[in-house]
This record gives sequence, C-alpha cells and structure tokens, in this order.
Amino acid sequence: MKASVYLVGAGPGDADLITLKAVKALQAADVILIDDLVNRALLQHAPQARVVEVGKRGGCQSTPQHFINRLMISLAEQGQTVVRLKGGDPFLFGRGGEEMLALRAAGIPVETVPGISSGVAVPASIGIPVTHRAYTHGVSFITGHTQDGGSPDWQALVASGTTLVIYMGMKHLAEISRGLLDAGMPADMPAAAIQNGTLQQQRQVISTLAELSMAVHQQGLESPAIIVVGEVVRLADSAMLATALAAAA
Amino acid sequence: MKASVYLVGAGPGDADLITLKAVKALQAADVILIDDLVNRALLQHAPQARVVEVGKRGGCQSTPQHFINRLMISLAEQGQTVVRLKGGDPFLFGRGGEEMLALRAAGIPVETVPGISSGVAVPASIGIPVTHRAYTHGVSFITGHTQDGGSPDWQALVASGTTLVIYMGMKHLAEISRGLLDAGMPADMPAAAIQNGTLQQQRQVISTLAELSMAVHQQGLESPAIIVVGEVVRLADSAMLATALAAAA
Repeated sequence: MKASVYLVGAGPGDADLITLKAVKALQAADVILIDDLVNRALLQHAPQARVVEVGKRGGCQSTPQHFINRLMISLAEQGQTVVRLKGGDPFLFGRGGEEMLALRAAGIPVETVPGISSGVAVPASIGIPVTHRAYTHGVSFITGHTQDGGSPDWQALVASGTTLVIYMGMKHLAEISRGLLDAGMPADMPAAAIQNGTLQQQRQVISTLAELSMAVHQQGLESPAIIVVGEVVRLADSAMLATALAAAA
Repeated sequence: MKASVYLVGAGPGDADLITLKAVKALQAADVILIDDLVNRALLQHAPQARVVEVGKRGGCQSTPQHFINRLMISLAEQGQTVVRLKGGDPFLFGRGGEEMLALRAAGIPVETVPGISSGVAVPASIGIPVTHRAYTHGVSFITGHTQDGGSPDWQALVASGTTLVIYMGMKHLAEISRGLLDAGMPADMPAAAIQNGTLQQQRQVISTLAELSMAVHQQGLESPAIIVVGEVVRLADSAMLATALAAAA
C-alpha cells in the first residue's frame, strides 16, 4: 500500500462482501473516516486505527463534504495513512469522484479500492440478475434526483430498454413511478424495492411499476433501499416472491 | 455456506479484488468450474478443489452453456459443493442469470456471491469515476451487441445523459462509435478503452468518441477491454493521461 489516502468501497452491507484489497487498506490505516451506512463489523480489520464518524447522526446533517475533504488532506499532510470507508463503491454515487479530485488538487497520493455496489448485489440477494440476455442488453444505474433538482430523462431511460436500478429513490418513489409511466413504461412492468439489502434485517416488496409505491407505503419500507424496474424482476427467487406476496396480502 | 452451487464473481482481474465471501466459497469448494478470463492466482484459496476449465482455450469454442449447466447439476446431485467462478460479477453480463435459472429448475440450492464488475473498477483504476454528480446523474452498462445481433438503442442511450460503459465492444468499436455519433453524441466527447484493467499488463487509450476507434487500432489494443464514453473520462488521472498521449504520439 503506497498511497496516503485510500477511497475504499465497503460493499452493500454484509461484512463478507468487502474485498481482500479493502481489508489490506483497513489493516494499514492510521485513521478511518467512516460513513453512516457502513457496517461497523468491518472495523474489526483495523483495531489499530482511529475512527472518525463523518456520516449523518440522528436527525443531524451529515458532515459537509468540504470538511471531509479538508480533514483527509490535513491527516495525509501529517503523514497519516487515511482510509475513507464508503458504502457500496466509491465511484458509483459515492461522491468518491469529488473526494479524489480534492485530494489530487492538494497533491495527495490517492488510490481507489472498488466495492460491491448495492445496485447489483442487493437485487442478486433475492435472485434478480440485473442483466439477462433474453430480457435486456444492459442496465442503467441512476439516482431519483439530479444535482440541480431535476428528474432524469425517464423517456430516454425507458426507450433504452435497459433494466433500471434506482439509488436513493424511496422519498420520491411515487414521482419516479409516475415519470416512468408517463414515459410509456407498461403499468405491469415488474418492479421491486429492497431495504437493507444483504443484511439480516433485509426486507423487500415485489410488485408492478404502477403498484410499487403503494405497496412500499403499505409495507412501511424505508431508506436505504434499492429500486429495480424491468423484466428481470420476474426472475426473483420464487420462494422469496411467495413470502413477499403473502406478507403483502 | 449452505448451498450446493455458488455462482461466484472473481472480480476484474487483480486477485485482491475478490470478496471475503468469495474466498470462503472457494475454501468450501469440492470442485471449481472456472472461466478463461479469471485470474488463476485465485485458485490459491482452494488447494483442495478439483478445477474444471470451461472457458475458451486457444482458438477453440468455449464450452457450450448447456454443458456447463448440466455439469453443475450433475456434480451437485453427487453431493459436491460446486463453485462456478466467473469474471467480474455473475449477474452483470456474466450469464449467471441463465445458470441460476437452470439450477433452480433442477431443484439445486444455488447462491450468488457478487463480484467487482470491470465496468466500475477498470475505469476507476485510471481515476475515472463512472458517476460524478457535476457531470451525470447515472451510468449505463451495455454490451456492444444484443442477443439477436442488433444494436442497442444508441439514440435513447445518448439522450439518457448517462455515462456509457460498454462491455465486449472492441470488435465492433468503429460501428459503436458511428452509432453514437449518428445518435447526436458530440464528436469530441471524451472516450477511453482500457485493456486488461487492474492487471500488470493493463493498457489504455484516452481519446474522443470520433477518434477512439482509430487510436485503439494504432495502439493495437484488443479484447478484453472496457470502453467508457462520457464527460467523466475527463477526470482520468492526469499523469496516466499524459503517459497515454505520449505513447499515442
């Protein structure tokens, strides 16, 4: 390990879904800046390290991004080996790109250690492959909202024919569903929402595009969750599907 | 570990980019069915296991999918613990979905162990985050060709505004570039091709959409490679970019 700062993906939740390279980075860390959603069991790999919590606590705001950037730079300049431990993958909606650029601008050697993203692993946990060549030629990973507050181009995304995996979409699920329906996606398109995927407390609702929002509300599912919309949702494990439907009845 | 067959993602190449869960599956394996592109160093985790090569060898055809399916079922029925070790993630263009359905139909308990997909980790290896909220609201992972021989809907994909990550696209790179240009993507859109990503022998070309195909040809880059098209390619590490440009001159 040769960098000063490692942007490390902690994976989707399950503490075994972290890479060997990430474990090596944790073992080499002097200090770990950890996000709220990261499984604390991962800290077992770094008993020597000081841990700084930089995620949301209680109802409070999360630590501002510029503060995290400055802290990483300051620690690195003091000669510390820093691990920035982030849920999922640092470069797939993890703001790792922003942190990398801040570190690079400050002349700090930085290395990224990829993580398993929830968008693939969480659907997989109930038997949904995000691609299957009989159903789709690809998959799009999007957030429910763009930085400027606008919506993604639902029309284009529906026309693309890709499976849609939506991160951070629970608060705007009704709006997202309406956007997809208005863009011409069939009301009976299979859709799923999966909360706390790969953890013991995982819960899911499998439904249709038109009914997912209501079903999620009825079941009381909340963030953090992954939403999947597409024909591949039909491939969900039938035993789990039966359980989910029975719970919904 | 309780399943009979584990569909395990081996990651993008670097032997350290495999998960702890995958290592546990390898340690528990009686037999491993391994793909051609998987790093053989991973077999160190399973000295006890019999290894069956099921990928392409030399110029030969790869083992037919139905043969692999039958072999997994047969071994599982003999009471063997089977690991099906696949490059990247089993469910992101890994045909893991097809294998899962075949096993499920035969009543064989199957579990998927996600892997780091090349589409995220390989761009990351040269400092390209596939998403960055200042540039895009998402990323689409697609193959250059659909199962029926047709092309993806380039128009829709361009309109989606997502970063495009193209798997298995090197043979049809000129055609893919033309499709994207015809769909209205700017000729000077940054684009990269990265061969053998995360391995010692990694090579990359960073160029523009209009010139990538020629640059790849001139540099002699070949499969396996990941193609990335989008504004985020601008974020590639400047040191590596300088190296790539000097090599291209």
